[in-house]
Amino acid sequence: MKVIWNDEIVERSEVKIDMEDRGYQFADGIYDVVRAYNGKFFTLNEHVDRLFSSAEKIELRLPFTKEKLKEMLSELIKINNIDTGNVYMQVTRGIGIPRNHPYPDPEEVSPVFTATTTIVARDQEKMDRGMSALIVPDLRWLRCDIKSISLLGNIMAKHEAHKKGADEAILHREGIVTECSSSNVWMIKNDTIYTHPDGNLVLPGITKLVLLRVAQNAGLSVKEEAFTLEDLKKSDEVFASSTTMEAMPITSIDGNPVGTGQRGPVVKKLQQLYVDAVENECGKVR
Amino acid sequence: MKVIWNDEIVERSEVKIDMEDRGYQFADGIYDVVRAYNGKFFTLNEHVDRLFSSAEKIELRLPFTKEKLKEMLSELIKINNIDTGNVYMQVTRGIGIPRNHPYPDPEEVSPVFTATTTIVARDQEKMDRGMSALIVPDLRWLRCDIKSISLLGNIMAKHEAHKKGADEAILHREGIVTECSSSNVWMIKNDTIYTHPDGNLVLPGITKLVLLRVAQNAGLSVKEEAFTLEDLKKSDEVFASSTTMEAMPITSIDGNPVGTGQRGPVVKKLQQLYVDAVENECGKVR
Repeated sequence: MKVIWNDEIVERSEVKIDMEDRGYQFADGIYDVVRAYNGKFFTLNEHVDRLFSSAEKIELRLPFTKEKLKEMLSELIKINNIDTGNVYMQVTRGIGIPRNHPYPDPEEVSPVFTATTTIVARDQEKMDRGMSALIVPDLRWLRCDIKSISLLGNIMAKHEAHKKGADEAILHREGIVTECSSSNVWMIKNDTIYTHPDGNLVLPGITKLVLLRVAQNAGLSVKEEAFTLEDLKKSDEVFASSTTMEAMPITSIDGNPVGTGQRGPVVKKLQQLYVDAVENECGKVR
Repeated sequence: MKVIWNDEIVERSEVKIDMEDRGYQFADGIYDVVRAYNGKFFTLNEHVDRLFSSAEKIELRLPFTKEKLKEMLSELIKINNIDTGNVYMQVTRGIGIPRNHPYPDPEEVSPVFTATTTIVARDQEKMDRGMSALIVPDLRWLRCDIKSISLLGNIMAKHEAHKKGADEAILHREGIVTECSSSNVWMIKNDTIYTHPDGNLVLPGITKLVLLRVAQNAGLSVKEEAFTLEDLKKSDEVFASSTTMEAMPITSIDGNPVGTGQRGPVVKKLQQLYVDAVENECGKVR
């Protein structure tokens, strides 16, 4: 399999990360994941813009232009023959010897870029059936708007959920629902769709952005407003959104059914609107 | 230079970290730094215990015993001829392909251990003169008791301080002082020494532990109690403690002098008590 390593497409086995890469020692880096359908990227511009925005927030100078990055990513999925799948990409600040906390002078360090592809089919059966979630305290830092590789808080929450047999963790800060461990979270009450507004507590999800747009265009009632665990318990429908999951129903929380315990009509409608948006850009989705 | 890579001491150039090491993609790992004086480790047991404790908190099974680790570290500083210097060591959960948030089954993944040495002389001149600090909001996660490589919050704070010409960042959560970006922080008021108690908001510093012990043994008044930014402003002396800095006076905060603006008598006393403890274990300090 081929991967991108800095400005080249190479065999995966050629890539060698330095033990003093600041990404490895300080989580000093950022990442993004973009999905392709039918060999075509969906919302590539938005993902590339977010990568650049994350980089700017940590004062990391990216070693390529947006255009160059898009070219490389397109070439990679072509070479790896990715029909429906994801590209994971990350950039770290580079190698810092000796290890030292402050950012090195950008003139003296070269960022390290890596990207891999994975074939990931759409899980239509799971999107119909829904998944389970566990409520877990949000222990993460206060800059969740940066899509950084400093993800230990996220994976600990996910692990907590998995240990108790749930698929995802719904995170809250003192009773206010923020997001899931690797997705945004939404609830529906009396036909109004709620999700936490962007800001320092949640990732500005691209799938969230698309869903907000298609929902509004379809005349649905949508509010970017924080809601509580109490609201969540009384909600009609709950779902998570992410690049890979699209709009994924959450049909049970802490072992209790959400609403009827089955995918509800609003999330079903949103799933269709999302697929319409994908098909508009990438052709028929299977 | 030689380094440790898993269970071997090898040439640094031989080490190759995988691009899908979970340490690189999720900051899924822990670390520690232990210091040697005269070629002998100071508080090695405490540092090794803390590494094991950090590992346990993230359910990472270390691939060696404490005894084996101590042997490897001792051999490394001998081979690299480290007189006064540090060993940095880290362990990640290992390589996870394809990238996936949940912890992999520990039976199916091998942790990756790396350790490097650096010669770092004692900076007696700086310990006499003191350093400057900037007050910065503590944006880190709520498990700062884990010495993890998920350090982006720490290095951003340090960078903030450096940009404004300060040596360290003093962090606070809504006015309560927690620690510095890479050290514990202390203040002295009316001959009583204060520092934030251990818990989820601060790292359980080994240097802090030693200073608490030697101060108590010397009959000084010490309180592990949180204090506020207001308290800090009215304090007589402030200092930071870490493995490398020992007890380092902070003589100015946000550009304003602390007390007289010079190292105070209590921190001077603590520095001496700390050196006594080091000399007791490692021989004469230069």
